[in-house]
Amino acid sequence: MEPAEDAAGVSVLERRLAEGGQDHVLSFWPELSSEARRALAAELRDMDVAEINRFFRRARGDGGGAATAAGLDARMQPVPRDVLGSASRDRELLPRWESRGLAEIAGSRVAALLLAGGQGTRLGVPYPKGMCDVGLPSRKTLFHLQAQRLRRLQQLAEEQYGTPCSIPWYIMTSGRTMESTKEFFVKHHYFGLKKENVIFFQQGMLPALGFDGKILLEEKGKIAMAPDGNGGLYRALGAHGIVEDMERRGVQSVHVYCVDNILVKVADPRFIGFCLEKGADCGAKVVEKTNPTEPVGVVCRVDGVYQVVEYSEISLATAQKRGPDGRLLFNAGNIANHYFTTAFLKDVVNTYEPQLQHHVAEKKIPHVDITTGQLIQPEKPNGIKMEKFVFDIFQFSKKFVVYEVLREDEFSPLKNADSQNGKDNPTTARHALMSLHHCWVLNAGGHFVDENGTRIPAIPRVTNGRSDATPADVNDNLKDANDLSIQCEISPLVSYGGEGLEKYVKGREFCAPLIIDEDGIHELVKNGV
Amino acid sequence: MEPAEDAAGVSVLERRLAEGGQDHVLSFWPELSSEARRALAAELRDMDVAEINRFFRRARGDGGGAATAAGLDARMQPVPRDVLGSASRDRELLPRWESRGLAEIAGSRVAALLLAGGQGTRLGVPYPKGMCDVGLPSRKTLFHLQAQRLRRLQQLAEEQYGTPCSIPWYIMTSGRTMESTKEFFVKHHYFGLKKENVIFFQQGMLPALGFDGKILLEEKGKIAMAPDGNGGLYRALGAHGIVEDMERRGVQSVHVYCVDNILVKVADPRFIGFCLEKGADCGAKVVEKTNPTEPVGVVCRVDGVYQVVEYSEISLATAQKRGPDGRLLFNAGNIANHYFTTAFLKDVVNTYEPQLQHHVAEKKIPHVDITTGQLIQPEKPNGIKMEKFVFDIFQFSKKFVVYEVLREDEFSPLKNADSQNGKDNPTTARHALMSLHHCWVLNAGGHFVDENGTRIPAIPRVTNGRSDATPADVNDNLKDANDLSIQCEISPLVSYGGEGLEKYVKGREFCAPLIIDEDGIHELVKNGV
Repeated sequence: MEPAEDAAGVSVLERRLAEGGQDHVLSFWPELSSEARRALAAELRDMDVAEINRFFRRARGDGGGAATAAGLDARMQPVPRDVLGSASRDRELLPRWESRGLAEIAGSRVAALLLAGGQGTRLGVPYPKGMCDVGLPSRKTLFHLQAQRLRRLQQLAEEQYGTPCSIPWYIMTSGRTMESTKEFFVKHHYFGLKKENVIFFQQGMLPALGFDGKILLEEKGKIAMAPDGNGGLYRALGAHGIVEDMERRGVQSVHVYCVDNILVKVADPRFIGFCLEKGADCGAKVVEKTNPTEPVGVVCRVDGVYQVVEYSEISLATAQKRGPDGRLLFNAGNIANHYFTTAFLKDVVNTYEPQLQHHVAEKKIPHVDITTGQLIQPEKPNGIKMEKFVFDIFQFSKKFVVYEVLREDEFSPLKNADSQNGKDNPTTARHALMSLHHCWVLNAGGHFVDENGTRIPAIPRVTNGRSDATPADVNDNLKDANDLSIQCEISPLVSYGGEGLEKYVKGREFCAPLIIDEDGIHELVKNGV
Repeated sequence: MEPAEDAAGVSVLERRLAEGGQDHVLSFWPELSSEARRALAAELRDMDVAEINRFFRRARGDGGGAATAAGLDARMQPVPRDVLGSASRDRELLPRWESRGLAEIAGSRVAALLLAGGQGTRLGVPYPKGMCDVGLPSRKTLFHLQAQRLRRLQQLAEEQYGTPCSIPWYIMTSGRTMESTKEFFVKHHYFGLKKENVIFFQQGMLPALGFDGKILLEEKGKIAMAPDGNGGLYRALGAHGIVEDMERRGVQSVHVYCVDNILVKVADPRFIGFCLEKGADCGAKVVEKTNPTEPVGVVCRVDGVYQVVEYSEISLATAQKRGPDGRLLFNAGNIANHYFTTAFLKDVVNTYEPQLQHHVAEKKIPHVDITTGQLIQPEKPNGIKMEKFVFDIFQFSKKFVVYEVLREDEFSPLKNADSQNGKDNPTTARHALMSLHHCWVLNAGGHFVDENGTRIPAIPRVTNGRSDATPADVNDNLKDANDLSIQCEISPLVSYGGEGLEKYVKGREFCAPLIIDEDGIHELVKNGV
C-alpha cells in the first residue's frame, strides 16, 4: 500500500477528506516534517470521515441534557418493585442468590469487565486511576484489591463446588492508559491471577469537532482525539472480538464496572445470582438516592423503556417526588455496576450498538486556528466531544432488573485529590474500606480495645476521649462512617464480603491498626497509642 | 456576713469542706494573695459540697456508655408508627399541623429556648458559636438568622390571624458565654426583636473531680469548674424562675434547640402543631439515620420508656437491624430539637430534675497536684466532669411523640473549622443553606441562568461545563447538595420556610449569586461570571 506522505497518497487522502468536507485538516501539510506527515496520514487513514459526519449529524439531533427535561419528567416512571432486588428489603433471599452466583462462577461461566479508560486527571495523578494507592496500611492499589477479590471468589467457588474455575477479567483501557496499565500488571505478576485470564483491550477514539462539525486540530499535524465514552465499550467489544472470546471460554454472565469504586464487589455472586434467577439479560446495581439534589443519575423507565436519567435532565419537582413509603420516587442511583448476558452483549455488538447515537459533550477544546495557525485556548465551550454511555443499551433489554445495595457496603468512588472538597477522595475511600472491615470484624465476634485495654464501642466516639453531650456537642453526629478512627484492613484473599473471619477474630480483642491477610493477623501498635 | 478570707470565715469554710472530705482545696491557702483568697472563698461559699459528693456517688452508680450496652440492646424498642409524625410520609397533614402551630404562635403561647452554652472551641473561634458568620453573602451570624426567623414567624402569624403576637426567646448561656452573648445582642439591637422578649439566663457549673471524687484545682486558688451539660437547663430554669416567666407570659409550648444548626426552624409551627394535635407534653424532632455506623444518638424506647440511646452505647448488630421496609430499625436520629409544654417543664423543675443522675464524662483535666503544688497536664483521662443531658427527661413524659424531618431541609450543624475534615464546617453549613434556598426559588417558579443566559439544570453539573459520563466520571455522583454551586440566599424576613416567594421569582430568570431580602432582589454579578 502506498506511503500516504507522498503526493499520490496525500491526494487520495485529500479526496476522501474533501468529500467529507474535512480537508481543512491538511491545511498545514506543506509545513509539516516528513515524520509529522507520516503520523498525520496514518491517523487519517484509520478515520472514517463519512461515519464521523454521520455521527455528528445524529448526535446534533439528540437535544440531550436539560433541554428535553420538560418532556422527560412527564414520561418517567419508577422501577416497579417486582423487578427490584434489595439487599436491605430482601435479606432472606441473599443466601440463595449468593450460592446461585457462586455455582455459576464455579462453572467458569462468569466474567468481570473493568472500565478503566479514565485517567486520574481530577485526582491529580498522571497515571490510570486503577494504579492509585489511597494509603491503606497494605498500600494496595485499586487494581490490586480487585484482582485479589477475584482470586478469593474463585477460591470460594472451588471450595463450595469442588471444581477448579476461573473468572476471566476483561480490562478496557483507552489509548491513554493501555501501555501503563499493561506494564503495571506485568510488573505485579497480574497480582497472582493467570495471565491468560486477564484480557486487555482498548476503547476507540473520535476526533473533537467544532460546533460546525469540522474536525479540530490539536497541533498543525495532529487531530484532537478523545475517547468515545464508556459506551465505546460495545464498539470495542466488536472491534477486538471480545464477545467471541467470552463464548470460547463459555462465559454467560458478565459484570461490568468502573475502576474507581474502592468497595466494588467484582463479579458479585449475589448480584449475578439475582439476575440469573430473574432470567435477566441486563441488570443494574444501584444505591438508594436519599437527597433530591444529590447529583446522581437514576435508573427508571421512560415510555416504558429502562434507562438512566441524568440528574441534570430532570426538574427539582420530579427529583423531590416521594412514594407513599416516604422514599424518593426516583431513588435508584446508578453506580455503574451492570450485569449483561454474553448473548445480550452479542446482540448489542451486532445489532443495537450501531443504532446508538452519541451524546454531545460541549467542551473547551484547545485547537489550532486553520486560518492563522495559532493555538487557541478557548474561554468557553467551542466544540464537542461525542460519546456513548455504557447504560445506553438498557433500552434494548428484553428482561431488565435492578439490584439495590447499601452504599456503606459497596460504593465509595475515588474522584478528587485530598486537597479538594472532603468528598470522594483518597481519604474518604480509605476510611470507607476500613470502616467496612471494622464492621466485618465486629460481626464476626471480634472486639477492639484502646491503649488501656478498654473495649472501644462499636461506633466509637467521634472526638477523642469524649463521652458527654454538651450544648456544643449533642449534635455531634450525622457524620458518616468516614469519621471512624479504627484502622482495620482485611485482605480480599482472606474475605471477599466479610465471610470466614470467625476463626481469626471470634472472642478476641485487638488493638488498631489491625491487618489480616494471607499471612495471618498483624497488629501494628502505633507509638504512644 | 463575715468576710470569708479572715481566719474565722476560713475556719467555717474549712469545717464544711472537711465534713465533705474536700478540704484539700484549701491546701495552698497560706500562699494565696488576699485577692485570690477572696475569690476562692466566694467560689466555695456558693458550693454545696454535700450535694456534689452525692452527685458523684450517684453518677458513679450509673455505669454509662458502652458498659451497659449488652443489656441495653435487648431492651431497646423502636418508635411505634402511631407516635411518629413524618414530613416525608405524612405530607398531606403538614398544612394542618402548620396552621395549628401558627394559631398557637398568634396567641403568643409559644416560646423558643436556645441552648447556647457552648463555646466554639472545636470551631477554632474564641467566642460563642452563635456569633459565627459562615460566609453567607449577607454575612449574617447564626444568632442573626434565628432572630429573623422568629420575626418572620410573628409576622406570618399576625397576617394569618390578625392579632399582634410575640415569641419569647429564652437563651441559656454558660459562665463562659454570657457576657459576650449579651454584648453581641445589644450591639445588634436584638436583631430587631423587642428587648423584653429576649431573656438570657445562665446554666450552672460543677467542679471537675478526680476518680476518687476529690475536687480538682485548676490553679492553687481556683477550682476546676465546668458547665453541667445541656441538661443543666432544667436546674437553671428553676434557679432563674424561667418557668414562672413563661407562665406569666402565657407560654404553653416551648421549642428547645441547639445554637449550631444553621437550618434550624426556630419555633417550627409544623412541629408545634403536630405535638399539640397529639396532645404531647414532650416531643423530639429527628432525622432518619441511614447508615448504621453514623455517630448519632437515636430516640427509642427502653423498657417501655422513651430515651435517646447514644451511638456508642449499642452494638453494631443492633445498629444494623432493619425493619421489613428496609429502613434501619433504630433510625430516629436525635438532632437536639425538642418540644415541651410549660406544664411539663414545671413538673421537671419541681419534681423530676432532682431525680436525674449525672452522666460521667472521663476527661483529661489539667490540675494542681495537692502535695507538690505542680500543674499537671494529664496524658490520659484523670478525672470526671458530671453532666446532665437535655433529653434525660424524656422518661418522665406522659405523652411522648417523635417528628421526623428531612435532613436537607432542617439540619446542618456547625462543628468544625474549615481546615478540618470536610464535614459540619462553615462551608458545609453555608452550602446547605444556599442549596435549600436555591430549591425554594425553583419550587416558587424561578430559574437560574448561566453567564450565557442558558438555563442551569435544577441539579447543576458538579464539574464545570461537563455534560458527559466517561469511565472516569459516570460515578460522578452521590456527592451531596454541598456540591451545588448556585449562590442563593433568602432573608428569613422574606421567607421562613420557602413560602411567599412566587411574587419575587415566579417565571423570572436569575444569575447567581442571588440575594432576596427585605429590600428586594439583589443579583450580584460576579466579575467574569
